[in-house]
Amino acid sequence: MSCDFLSLARPGVQKLSPYVPGKPVEELAREFGLQAQDIVKLASNENPMGPSPAVKAAIAAALPELTRYPDGNGFALKQALAERLGVATDSITLGNGSNDILELVTRAFVGPEHEVIFSDHAFAVYPIVTQAVGAKAVSVPAKNWGHDLVAMAAAITESTRLIFIANPNNPTGTWIERAELEAFLAKVPERVIVVLDEAYTEYVETDDVPNGMDYLAQYPNLLVSRTFSKAYGLAAIRVGYGVSCAAIADALNRVRQPFNVNALALAAALAALQDEAYLIESRRLNRAGMQQLEDGCAAQGLSWIPSRGNFLAIDLGREAAPIFQALLREGVIVRPVANYGMPNHLRVTVGLPEENQRFLDALKRVMLRG
Amino acid sequence: MSCDFLSLARPGVQKLSPYVPGKPVEELAREFGLQAQDIVKLASNENPMGPSPAVKAAIAAALPELTRYPDGNGFALKQALAERLGVATDSITLGNGSNDILELVTRAFVGPEHEVIFSDHAFAVYPIVTQAVGAKAVSVPAKNWGHDLVAMAAAITESTRLIFIANPNNPTGTWIERAELEAFLAKVPERVIVVLDEAYTEYVETDDVPNGMDYLAQYPNLLVSRTFSKAYGLAAIRVGYGVSCAAIADALNRVRQPFNVNALALAAALAALQDEAYLIESRRLNRAGMQQLEDGCAAQGLSWIPSRGNFLAIDLGREAAPIFQALLREGVIVRPVANYGMPNHLRVTVGLPEENQRFLDALKRVMLRG
Repeated sequence: MSCDFLSLARPGVQKLSPYVPGKPVEELAREFGLQAQDIVKLASNENPMGPSPAVKAAIAAALPELTRYPDGNGFALKQALAERLGVATDSITLGNGSNDILELVTRAFVGPEHEVIFSDHAFAVYPIVTQAVGAKAVSVPAKNWGHDLVAMAAAITESTRLIFIANPNNPTGTWIERAELEAFLAKVPERVIVVLDEAYTEYVETDDVPNGMDYLAQYPNLLVSRTFSKAYGLAAIRVGYGVSCAAIADALNRVRQPFNVNALALAAALAALQDEAYLIESRRLNRAGMQQLEDGCAAQGLSWIPSRGNFLAIDLGREAAPIFQALLREGVIVRPVANYGMPNHLRVTVGLPEENQRFLDALKRVMLRG
Repeated sequence: MSCDFLSLARPGVQKLSPYVPGKPVEELAREFGLQAQDIVKLASNENPMGPSPAVKAAIAAALPELTRYPDGNGFALKQALAERLGVATDSITLGNGSNDILELVTRAFVGPEHEVIFSDHAFAVYPIVTQAVGAKAVSVPAKNWGHDLVAMAAAITESTRLIFIANPNNPTGTWIERAELEAFLAKVPERVIVVLDEAYTEYVETDDVPNGMDYLAQYPNLLVSRTFSKAYGLAAIRVGYGVSCAAIADALNRVRQPFNVNALALAAALAALQDEAYLIESRRLNRAGMQQLEDGCAAQGLSWIPSRGNFLAIDLGREAAPIFQALLREGVIVRPVANYGMPNHLRVTVGLPEENQRFLDALKRVMLRG
């Protein structure tokens, strides 16, 4: 081939390094010759409970319509969300996962002349979507591994168009308290859109973490994004949503692919939203598993970053990459976070009790060995 | 709200008119107080057979993994496609429907300084994705409702970066023959990417319509896009793919959302690809239904554009909008195509024999009445 097609790509795209997902179980099984059922995956902050029976039933009920396009407007799901959240349906944008929402807002509003602010150690998708549109990424140093909202507000310039904040944050698990968020929002000029990524909010059980929905009426420049991939247990089928003023939702819906959310995801999310028992049990399991992981780490003399998510960033006190590799050989997949500027940490998803124990035991073995 | 957020959106986005999908059955039922089961939808070129049992079984088998992220690399589906098509896996890009592929190639390669060429009466998504990136759309007049490839090649300028051609084309059903395509590809400079949209190719049963895959080796600037939404009957769950040289696939995969294709779609597409009997029956049903529609139109003295797709653009010889509305009241949804520059045509999807008859009978009634 004579033509260098990558040189024809948009400047931002040429420099783009794709997101690195958690290693799939099947891939590890192929590479190391392991049996899939012997592998524990605590690498992608997935819900360890397995799917809700109500959700499986909703999907089964939707199968006869597999040959039909989804409802591109997501009428039923938007109605249910609007009712649940106390917002208007025209303030909602449905996404193919909340990743889609993060991308849509960036593509709708940000160009090469803009700056996008986010925190160090924040979700990898923020720099990726910024890079993809050729905008300037402004990564603000963290404070105690969490967002330094004072510094982030101070980083706003005439060119700032978007700020990503995550509450709780992935991969650190850190959170922003009510007063901090309120002081921050009050300082952001209205021409700057604040994306408050609440992917893990359903796991929060304390009063000190604010609910983004409470600020939408006061701040029309606020977009709150959420997902069904975590506490609702629907990572496989990709459904998330954004809530914002109608004008921002209108812009996102113009950019959105007409059938970005598939029909089974629409049906599943609707069922998941109504399955309160599943959510309650997700939280209970997470609370107990978090305690188990913290106790296990303490027993091994390891420290960690306190977390309000369904995962824990554990400080190994040494380079984590070889430990990650050694854990793989033990059939335990966790997440290395060196690409988040955290070379000594491993991020571990809270699993079932036996999965957490499998991880803790394997960690103990490989730490002693190395 | 004091801020006009739409004025902050990218210039292309501000002018964007979203894609108008076929009217969903549920929506018509709500609006006209009809029963969903009494409505016939022949509006979105969906497969009327209903889902393949093998596909339903594959989805059911994937449900226990609903809480897990999809394999972002689509390993198994890419392997199967590569084997089937005789291409390398690194030449494949998986999309959330082929709509995703059309968008990815545009976002990866096209900017405001570029021109994008397509034909009049071609798929509405081509101008939409062009507009979204702020590029100049160059719509070339059609010849006998089909692509005029000679004129399209002549429209190439120094600024042209992308050309969309569809074979067969939607909504006209027209097709490009082998010699025409070959002469065209030979004329396109290598720096111009040709997207050959073959969404309907599985319905083609004649030898005169070329297979895009045959030209990939010779033309590294060619991207062939295909979908599982039509003949494979998977519109609900969004899966399509692009095949191109590895360098173009690499650029698309950088822009692609990490989990753009959901896990049930991956499993379903793999099963659909192996279900030859379903595809054969889809074609048989389409052939018979096309004949039924043509015979019915002829009997009513109506003409149509000869089609190689699973739909027929019927010339009513008068403004089609009131007829479309009258058909809705009869519980029959077809597709008005005035927004495609075809105000006197209605596009009708080939349905089951009884659905086709329902449409023909209703059309006869409303045409006589109006």
